[in-house]
Amino acid sequence: MFAVEVSEQIMIAHSFRGEVFGPAQQLHGATFVVRAAFIAEALDPNGIVVDIGRAHEALKATLGPLNYRNLDELPLFKGVNTTTEFVSKHVFDALAAAVRANELGRNGREIKALRITVLESPSACAWFEAPLW
Amino acid sequence: MFAVEVSEQIMIAHSFRGEVFGPAQQLHGATFVVRAAFIAEALDPNGIVVDIGRAHEALKATLGPLNYRNLDELPLFKGVNTTTEFVSKHVFDALAAAVRANELGRNGREIKALRITVLESPSACAWFEAPLW
Amino acid sequence: MFAVEVSEQIMIAHSFRGEVFGPAQQLHGATFVVRAAFIAEALDPNGIVVDIGRAHEALKATLGPLNYRNLDELPLFKGVNTTTEFVSKHVFDALAAAVRANELGRNGREIKALRITVLESPSACAWFEAPLW
Amino acid sequence: MFAVEVSEQIMIAHSFRGEVFGPAQQLHGATFVVRAAFIAEALDPNGIVVDIGRAHEALKATLGPLNYRNLDELPLFKGVNTTTEFVSKHVFDALAAAVRANELGRNGREIKALRITVLESPSACAWFEAPLW
Amino acid sequence: MFAVEVSEQIMIAHSFRGEVFGPAQQLHGATFVVRAAFIAEALDPNGIVVDIGRAHEALKATLGPLNYRNLDELPLFKGVNTTTEFVSKHVFDALAAAVRANELGRNGREIKALRITVLESPSACAWFEAPLW
Amino acid sequence: MFAVEVSEQIMIAHSFRGEVFGPAQQLHGATFVVRAAFIAEALDPNGIVVDIGRAHEALKATLGPLNYRNLDELPLFKGVNTTTEFVSKHVFDALAAAVRANELGRNGREIKALRITVLESPSACAWFEAPLW
Repeated sequence: MFAVEVSEQIMIAHSFRGEVFGPAQQLHGATFVVRAAFIAEALDPNGIVVDIGRAHEALKATLGPLNYRNLDELPLFKGVNTTTEFVSKHVFDALAAAVRANELGRNGREIKALRITVLESPSACAWFEAPLW
Repeated sequence: MFAVEVSEQIMIAHSFRGEVFGPAQQLHGATFVVRAAFIAEALDPNGIVVDIGRAHEALKATLGPLNYRNLDELPLFKGVNTTTEFVSKHVFDALAAAVRANELGRNGREIKALRITVLESPSACAWFEAPLW
Repeated sequence: MFAVEVSEQIMIAHSFRGEVFGPAQQLHGATFVVRAAFIAEALDPNGIVVDIGRAHEALKATLGPLNYRNLDELPLFKGVNTTTEFVSKHVFDALAAAVRANELGRNGREIKALRITVLESPSACAWFEAPLW
Repeated sequence: MFAVEVSEQIMIAHSFRGEVFGPAQQLHGATFVVRAAFIAEALDPNGIVVDIGRAHEALKATLGPLNYRNLDELPLFKGVNTTTEFVSKHVFDALAAAVRANELGRNGREIKALRITVLESPSACAWFEAPLW
Repeated sequence: MFAVEVSEQIMIAHSFRGEVFGPAQQLHGATFVVRAAFIAEALDPNGIVVDIGRAHEALKATLGPLNYRNLDELPLFKGVNTTTEFVSKHVFDALAAAVRANELGRNGREIKALRITVLESPSACAWFEAPLW
Repeated sequence: MFAVEVSEQIMIAHSFRGEVFGPAQQLHGATFVVRAAFIAEALDPNGIVVDIGRAHEALKATLGPLNYRNLDELPLFKGVNTTTEFVSKHVFDALAAAVRANELGRNGREIKALRITVLESPSACAWFEAPLW
């Protein structure tokens, strides 16, 4: 399997509901470094999985509405804990839709899976990986 | 698949037996940066794989008896080469037991696998990954 | 000049006032990785600048009241923009006071300067460095 | 599964053919940090996947002919785009041949797979992973 | 002294003249990660050294003409070795001019010095630092 | 001022004497990543501070006798605590002697200072910087 991975970062505020979160129940924030890996069985005739430029654009388009925001106030995330794991899945869903709509400049069917990694600090991260078809 | 990964570090001394190790047969040491990834099919009702705080605690509890020690002198490691690969497996076994004993704050059955990565330097690392059930 | 530097991290929310900040005027947040360097002309009889353990403790004590908080709501920061530069200076002031009060386990007079670096993302950081005496 | 991974770096020039590459159609270059992971089900009697020293040597031997070169001029790469993905596969093929020829100091049959990661910058990388048998 | 530092990256080809460079006399290339630090004695009324957004823009404007280029072919660099040290100084000169022309959104006189760091690989970098006035 | 910095790594065992060190009084070890910066006012006619290749060789020559060793047993370090700070100074002294003996391929007088940084873990490092003349 081939993969190409690009990364972008956002700065957000949020809080969590649930005793398990301890002090993170308070309003706080994070710099999220988000890596999106596009996975394919074969390279296209240009010798790439997908165009890195387009991959960056798709990732930025997904992250833009979250950047410099308090995630607690976004209708999109009403009633959910926007944990690092959850954000991984949110980005996965958005990029999966983009791939399936052939928006990455390659027949979406040829992208077999995505893996989204979100680093919240030097000592903790989360990821979500799944096939697309 | 979802994963959440935390990291801790230890500073140890050890030596290896076997010609393949060359100068590493001498007593030397390493800073091991140890990353533990907990892997699950679904998030719990809080929106997490496991509590990051508990994950850090479990990893620290596993690494504590090794930190600032000469591994050659630990009865636990008598007669084995405490290679980076071996340490990965050792940490895996300890955390697997903790998960199976439901000590991570979630039904252990819901944690499907662990992946332990041990970085010995900027240019070399090892990992061990396996299902838990 | 000798220096020893330790690092810790915090996760905070905040917002900025001033057109120059653009979208960062909205409530957002950051993971701040904070590095504190203690600078001295000579090592003490143990061969250290200061005890790394104590340095970590002093840095944690300074950062604790900020961690998992919305800095906009802390009386301490009322009316100021808690920029990365500002946070560098805030940590400097707290650690400078600790050094001057001989709380680092060494005659504070022997610590000549501090340098505090705050990383807000992989692509931006700030620092503040000044002599202590 | 166990893995051990080593890394080396090279500095190369190249250009790409195809509109998708935009300005990268011009002659430019890259520092490629190349990580090679050797994957096995079990450790050998020494407690390792493969000797890290030999793994470094095998990776260096593969990368040597590319280092400080314009890849466009190498007969080996005539008519292909030497993308990050392509380089991952090229290194995979060379190391796979070395493993199959038992050149890593272990029966090649016991190495189940390789994963080659190539980082072209802090914000983009590619990898290729496949079983060897 | 306060500083704020931003980073950008470029991918370039070049070759060096002089026996000291060994194989780097051949046409090769590099990913240069370029960090620009703006240094001031005091923060402005907004609590910043300079606007990070403007700092990124100024650095991008300086690096743009080099990105995806063979530096050997740029009239600007005719007859010089575009070493990592040289590139540090080139970026310094361009940003110094921008600061002196008050293009960073603050009276240039209040920016006392610049420090430009260029990383060519994980194991080598160069920097140039000098006062501006 | 210009600088060029190279890095190498070693893996050592050692122990410390003194209550301040707590558990680090036990025999343990470290991976030391050692960075050596050579500082000059002007570039040489080739456009460099010193040849990066020679800088790597000089640093390796200094670190070689320490690598894969128990520093407690080296006559060179008899009776001293080989702290991270101390190792920084040790490397400084050796490279300063090499520069003064014109072994870096440039008139030593033109190298004004050295800065040696030793990273013992992702969260702690030390450095020593001083003029050479």
